[in-house]
Amino acid sequence: MPHRIVHMLRARGTGRRPVMLAIAGDSAAGKTTLTRGLVECLGEDRMTAVCVDDYHRFDRRERQGKPFTALHPDCNYIEIMEQHLQLLAMGEPILKPVYDHGTGELVRPELIEPRDFVIVEGLLPLYSKMARACFDITVYLDPPEAQRTAWKVSRDTTKRGYTADQVMEEMRRREIESAAFIRPQRRHADIVVRFGSVSGRADPPQEPLSAELLLRPTVDHPDLAEVVHGADALHLKLLRDTDGRPVDALHVHGGVSGEEAEIVKKAIWERLDVETPFPASLGTLADGATSDPVAITQLLLLYHLINADRLRMAS
Amino acid sequence: MPHRIVHMLRARGTGRRPVMLAIAGDSAAGKTTLTRGLVECLGEDRMTAVCVDDYHRFDRRERQGKPFTALHPDCNYIEIMEQHLQLLAMGEPILKPVYDHGTGELVRPELIEPRDFVIVEGLLPLYSKMARACFDITVYLDPPEAQRTAWKVSRDTTKRGYTADQVMEEMRRREIESAAFIRPQRRHADIVVRFGSVSGRADPPQEPLSAELLLRPTVDHPDLAEVVHGADALHLKLLRDTDGRPVDALHVHGGVSGEEAEIVKKAIWERLDVETPFPASLGTLADGATSDPVAITQLLLLYHLINADRLRMAS
Repeated sequence: MPHRIVHMLRARGTGRRPVMLAIAGDSAAGKTTLTRGLVECLGEDRMTAVCVDDYHRFDRRERQGKPFTALHPDCNYIEIMEQHLQLLAMGEPILKPVYDHGTGELVRPELIEPRDFVIVEGLLPLYSKMARACFDITVYLDPPEAQRTAWKVSRDTTKRGYTADQVMEEMRRREIESAAFIRPQRRHADIVVRFGSVSGRADPPQEPLSAELLLRPTVDHPDLAEVVHGADALHLKLLRDTDGRPVDALHVHGGVSGEEAEIVKKAIWERLDVETPFPASLGTLADGATSDPVAITQLLLLYHLINADRLRMAS
Repeated sequence: MPHRIVHMLRARGTGRRPVMLAIAGDSAAGKTTLTRGLVECLGEDRMTAVCVDDYHRFDRRERQGKPFTALHPDCNYIEIMEQHLQLLAMGEPILKPVYDHGTGELVRPELIEPRDFVIVEGLLPLYSKMARACFDITVYLDPPEAQRTAWKVSRDTTKRGYTADQVMEEMRRREIESAAFIRPQRRHADIVVRFGSVSGRADPPQEPLSAELLLRPTVDHPDLAEVVHGADALHLKLLRDTDGRPVDALHVHGGVSGEEAEIVKKAIWERLDVETPFPASLGTLADGATSDPVAITQLLLLYHLINADRLRMAS
């Protein structure tokens, strides 16, 4: 009955559709930190942030004795997650399921209405072809495992009431499913972000974070060769990714000076050629400190969000 | 970004789409009784029954002090109900909200997967143009108010723990919203069903139910003039509805003999010209008794369901 679809599409009218950004990555990879800066920058009145880790098929009690962890796609309503991503991408509201991470129970769903920009962060937003079809820009967070472990232990022991041993045990339990379902999303990202200490060591935590951004030619990036030309702590290199595919790699050294960072950030912003004032409040970390490599990463994502929004308005 | 929609539709593929039947009507109008017979007849493996009275925006506690009852569209996520009806109509699953009528709380949603036939019953399934666009056949249950009151008092005092006074008070409280939002759905139904006692009195309950079916020319009904020709207790009359629009009215007298009912039911079934055997288990009421007028009504709905299914298979 194709007539019914036409009937329904006509009745629906043509709403304005949001720009969709995915931020995928394993637990404690830095998704929330990256997202928070973008929301603060564009404002909550223009941006909707959605975490897709609530589509659990089973609650915590029901999962006991099941042969997989909450990471496994079979443990989640992946088809409903895909459907909700499609609806958001078409500017439609959703009634999103809610998992209470405190009690481990599935509770009353919540209404989510997409604004101009929708950031979808979580463990599996790029898991399937259908889910990926919903995004304008896709990001995978890929910190070195030692770095991610340090972050996860720090967060889960201070904010979630676990001991370090419990966190490590849970990470071991999840490793097979991380390798099977989370990490393969990396190859579908337009931008792969690798935050880590300069030395590659997770300790000492005082060491400033560096960022390595793999920029795939699946979206149009600003011309960064010009931007980093002559800079001391930023480099752009053409290289082959681990799978042999060509990428541009932007390296931002953790020791970049405030002045140089400022010049580079403004240069990226100028390439947007928009009247929106340069966003100052970027790069804030979970502990309140600020990081120029994080700020530059967020600025590049803002560039893509605003550019996609502008293209949409013009079309 | 129309390309994204095309991208998504292509990724979705072409699923088989169910036949959609709406049964709208006020509380205790007989929706569940009518639905139960259809589900039993077609089988749970082919039919999905959905009640759309769970899309409450507020739980019972939050509704206290609000200037409307749960009947009011503003008290419900009507937009989400419409969206879910569209998804079911396209053969897609939904994660349906669940309202616990015992505790008055909104709880964990449930996965609903549409089968060949989807029956959607409730207070407001025909409320909006968008919702109506999702159905192949639409029914409104319109018992005389005295009859509905008797049914509601009987059900709510025996099964839901209320006193008769409480039920009457609640009906009074809802009357304005019933008139404003429930009853206007009557005009959008292909079939208006009026079950009631022959005398029009709600008492004595022993009096057998009659049925008056208004058959609007919005769908193709079987040729009932032939079917009822010469029958004693069944009549087909051309008349004007209360709004002046022409309708066929099929009257099935509560005192119809078992033999005559059987002849009529078989005659309706033969007009379908299908190999499905004649359904015997129709017309069961809430108290376990059976009613030929109810059975004939269900048979007419089955006729439409199977006919729509056949047309869909052929297209």
